[in-house]
Amino acid sequence: MTRSDGHQRDVNTAAGPIGWPEGFTAAACLTFDMDAEAAVLSTDISSVDRMSPMSHQSYGPLVGVPRILDMLERHGLKATFFVPGYTAHRYPATVRSVAEAGHEVAHHSYFHENTAGMDARTEADMLDLGIKALQEVAGVTPVGYRAPMWELNYHTPRLLEDRGFLYDSSLMDADHPYRLAVDERPQAGSIVQVPVSWGLDDWEQYAFLPGLIGSGVIESPAKALEMWTWELEAMHRLGACFVLTCHPFLSGRPSRAEALERLIERMKELPGLWITTVAEVARHTASLDLVPRTCPQPRIPEQAYWVPRRP
Amino acid sequence: MTRSDGHQRDVNTAAGPIGWPEGFTAAACLTFDMDAEAAVLSTDISSVDRMSPMSHQSYGPLVGVPRILDMLERHGLKATFFVPGYTAHRYPATVRSVAEAGHEVAHHSYFHENTAGMDARTEADMLDLGIKALQEVAGVTPVGYRAPMWELNYHTPRLLEDRGFLYDSSLMDADHPYRLAVDERPQAGSIVQVPVSWGLDDWEQYAFLPGLIGSGVIESPAKALEMWTWELEAMHRLGACFVLTCHPFLSGRPSRAEALERLIERMKELPGLWITTVAEVARHTASLDLVPRTCPQPRIPEQAYWVPRRP
Amino acid sequence: MTRSDGHQRDVNTAAGPIGWPEGFTAAACLTFDMDAEAAVLSTDISSVDRMSPMSHQSYGPLVGVPRILDMLERHGLKATFFVPGYTAHRYPATVRSVAEAGHEVAHHSYFHENTAGMDARTEADMLDLGIKALQEVAGVTPVGYRAPMWELNYHTPRLLEDRGFLYDSSLMDADHPYRLAVDERPQAGSIVQVPVSWGLDDWEQYAFLPGLIGSGVIESPAKALEMWTWELEAMHRLGACFVLTCHPFLSGRPSRAEALERLIERMKELPGLWITTVAEVARHTASLDLVPRTCPQPRIPEQAYWVPRRP
Amino acid sequence: MTRSDGHQRDVNTAAGPIGWPEGFTAAACLTFDMDAEAAVLSTDISSVDRMSPMSHQSYGPLVGVPRILDMLERHGLKATFFVPGYTAHRYPATVRSVAEAGHEVAHHSYFHENTAGMDARTEADMLDLGIKALQEVAGVTPVGYRAPMWELNYHTPRLLEDRGFLYDSSLMDADHPYRLAVDERPQAGSIVQVPVSWGLDDWEQYAFLPGLIGSGVIESPAKALEMWTWELEAMHRLGACFVLTCHPFLSGRPSRAEALERLIERMKELPGLWITTVAEVARHTASLDLVPRTCPQPRIPEQAYWVPRRP
Repeated sequence: MTRSDGHQRDVNTAAGPIGWPEGFTAAACLTFDMDAEAAVLSTDISSVDRMSPMSHQSYGPLVGVPRILDMLERHGLKATFFVPGYTAHRYPATVRSVAEAGHEVAHHSYFHENTAGMDARTEADMLDLGIKALQEVAGVTPVGYRAPMWELNYHTPRLLEDRGFLYDSSLMDADHPYRLAVDERPQAGSIVQVPVSWGLDDWEQYAFLPGLIGSGVIESPAKALEMWTWELEAMHRLGACFVLTCHPFLSGRPSRAEALERLIERMKELPGLWITTVAEVARHTASLDLVPRTCPQPRIPEQAYWVPRRP
Repeated sequence: MTRSDGHQRDVNTAAGPIGWPEGFTAAACLTFDMDAEAAVLSTDISSVDRMSPMSHQSYGPLVGVPRILDMLERHGLKATFFVPGYTAHRYPATVRSVAEAGHEVAHHSYFHENTAGMDARTEADMLDLGIKALQEVAGVTPVGYRAPMWELNYHTPRLLEDRGFLYDSSLMDADHPYRLAVDERPQAGSIVQVPVSWGLDDWEQYAFLPGLIGSGVIESPAKALEMWTWELEAMHRLGACFVLTCHPFLSGRPSRAEALERLIERMKELPGLWITTVAEVARHTASLDLVPRTCPQPRIPEQAYWVPRRP
Repeated sequence: MTRSDGHQRDVNTAAGPIGWPEGFTAAACLTFDMDAEAAVLSTDISSVDRMSPMSHQSYGPLVGVPRILDMLERHGLKATFFVPGYTAHRYPATVRSVAEAGHEVAHHSYFHENTAGMDARTEADMLDLGIKALQEVAGVTPVGYRAPMWELNYHTPRLLEDRGFLYDSSLMDADHPYRLAVDERPQAGSIVQVPVSWGLDDWEQYAFLPGLIGSGVIESPAKALEMWTWELEAMHRLGACFVLTCHPFLSGRPSRAEALERLIERMKELPGLWITTVAEVARHTASLDLVPRTCPQPRIPEQAYWVPRRP
Repeated sequence: MTRSDGHQRDVNTAAGPIGWPEGFTAAACLTFDMDAEAAVLSTDISSVDRMSPMSHQSYGPLVGVPRILDMLERHGLKATFFVPGYTAHRYPATVRSVAEAGHEVAHHSYFHENTAGMDARTEADMLDLGIKALQEVAGVTPVGYRAPMWELNYHTPRLLEDRGFLYDSSLMDADHPYRLAVDERPQAGSIVQVPVSWGLDDWEQYAFLPGLIGSGVIESPAKALEMWTWELEAMHRLGACFVLTCHPFLSGRPSRAEALERLIERMKELPGLWITTVAEVARHTASLDLVPRTCPQPRIPEQAYWVPRRP
């Protein structure tokens, strides 16, 4: 953390709209984070002895994923599944079925580790473990990455570029995909960023395990559908890239899957909407030869010498 | 907790749809957890001196249960009441009235103890105390069990089988009932599992006692009704077993009971829906001679050597 | 806290429906807790130096109460205002205007102290301070009491009877008012209880001051109106006593007051609904010569020897 | 904190309705708090190393503000942007574009510091730093102030008057703007107060960053729009001043901006509604030569000798 005089160069530039492939005016990606048990175990390792929370998480690969795969097939759509390596080791048949159905299998850490504050060496190990697991289990070398809890470190983009990743999908500063410089040096390499947002995540709508995850409020699928439809239609009008993040252990439940299907039906009605995988969006974005942009880390001003007191 | 190499056998299999009795294509169970004071006392024992929270809990057996019994009789339905032993000792007339009306009285611990991390010896004692209480008070030997807060331990299924229980209703990894092997040994015995889910529980919609229970948000019965109707209809279409969990101290309130009655009316309109007790569903499931499935405990991978840091 | 063998006498009896005055079949009371600053100061005394939270609380007596008085006058209704002594000392003109408009001024502690676990001596002092403040400021000797946060102690009913109170309105074990024995001795005196419920409180719908009060969620008046209307109509059908608890610093805000007015309009459409003060309901209940009932304190069973572990 | 006998002079008077400029009967101000990274950094300084939360905050100046500026231009409206000095230093082009479009740039601290309990000397330094930043970056000397989290100290009004500020917009005790005496001395100077309320803030509806901000619940724009429309229409009927507080990193998201636009469309339909900046409302209020009112600090009564025990 560097302290400066607080007068920073105006290096911040927004990621603007991009052109879409012939015939399309906007894009939409359905993404599924196959966290299964890892998301809970990495929150509280002692939950490994709690059979009910573990069964709640296994609903994802056992029931949610097959239901979602059927739904996607029914609609002729391809989606992106972000899979922790641990999920691949624990549910290899499920992960293989995702790959065999032609969907994208992408990287989502090894054990859904909290990456906030993780040093680069540990994060590199974790990335390599995750790649290895997906290669071993599904024969897939992932081109895309999403951090657990979307917690990217400033060193993560470089780690991804070093490993040949095409894209990351964890940042929240744009409605459109863009080329992200892996650091602030002039000749730094770049990857594609396909941004997300908390309002397009099913976790805050549905997740609850006492003492482990969730606010304690569980929303109706009708409310989630309303909210996501508003955002879908607004992003479609903007020519943006709508990226919905669902968790099969949550959105795989019967009526939530139906809400998702209604959203898909709405997607298909929208003219010029390219419904595709994140990798396809990233490949297209990469083909545009955009100028890489940086997300410069804030510098703490010297004047802010008082200790922030709000908890 | 056993550490392994992270490469686990693919022992996980989903519980698929089952056939239902002649004339039925799906099932629905109304269940009522008669927690009364125990659910709050086991959270904070000092609440025993707080007259208002205690009166809030006693609303369940004093007002909620009679109202629910009337409603069930009006609709000619039988339901399942999961009763802590302590509730039976404190409200014997209420518990007897449930049994006498022909509803199922099932086991819900003795004192709504937190079973997460409870050793098998203590849990066995608790189970025996609960059985004894239901036998003494209502003349009932329960065939079904539901853990407080749905917190089953991996040793619990065996404790249940040892005591002759037909079923448990605390796990969340399926939409359909199944035969659950009591452990992972090839010749282990089995019980029936009738799974539940957090989205079909009235606690997260309605529960609030400051500093004791609830998120602080209290939902409208209209919202709960909407959400549960969505799930009822979706599960009906899937041929699944809808299991709603209500608490008489919550859903026994006037307008919440009316919301429940509207849900019952919707249930009765759905063709082929078998509205019955959990015990009946479990007996039917047991009669199908299904292959028992396991819910294998996760093993922590050796690679996950970093300390999970997320709170 | 007394330990017993867990086998308690079946002393619990519900409070059943009562007859209402000629021409009425149910009752409804609008109650306003004039907490003002005390409710926040008693939560965190250091908030006395935070001008904005203090201004948020003073909205109640300065703006909310006059608006509510106008609305009540417009509809020709009398309501009950539960007033902490401190509020009377700080806003004497407002409190006098409530009394002068013919509304009931009742007791709501002196400083909105947390009474949970408060010893009888301190609670007696607090009651006397509150009585004195209302007498001095508004010339009123209150006949009704409501505990801050509805936290009655088991010794409180006797303290109230000793001071000649007609009723308390803090318990939650019934839909109908009843005669409450001040303790479990056979010849104990009694007061009237007019019960409340958390679902009929505007606090959980609207209250928010960061780090001081509220869950962080702020509901729409449309949602509160829907929820309260459901309960109003259900209680009307049951012949019960609907008691709504609002806080002028919350429900006095413009659109929330309009939601309340729509509820009042609905009340006036319901045939046979007696819209009156809590004191009137209590006087009527007292006139019925009901058998006093007890709310027996739970006894912790000896068998519950394990330490409850849920936080 | 001064203890008194609890008998305070009745110095509290409400701020009543004011006359509006010719042709207008009520007012509405759209305000945007450009917190960007500072609001999160001042909550947890270690978040400076978390790239995703930082990107979430930068969405505000990079994407949200341009979208909002376009929308305001489309409707021919001027709004007020409360800008921390740090945001001006980090996003000078954005802040200049706000000023160049003719909107009001007002003061919102330097680093979104928690001002609760801040001593007057530190707060004065912070105010001066913020003024300097807005002057340097946007060539603007702000006439208005809003405290971070609306946390005004009782000494803040005097600090503002000393620096020539026309108004503050952080208090919550009125529906109408008023003249606020900077302290309780008879001949104290005054500034204008344009009050706000928590129900008219997008933070409680939309904000979420795990472990940093928000309750964990994310509301639909449809719900926020419904709630704000209710309050807009109610305040319009009262001749009051509706002040909506939005954060570009929240309400700048596509469908939330559309909800805001629908609210603007409703505003424009309301007859006699003056849609303008807070500075214009303050200038008009100042021109009315109102009697300054005080917001007297509560004094803790000596009788409240018990330690408040509620957490």
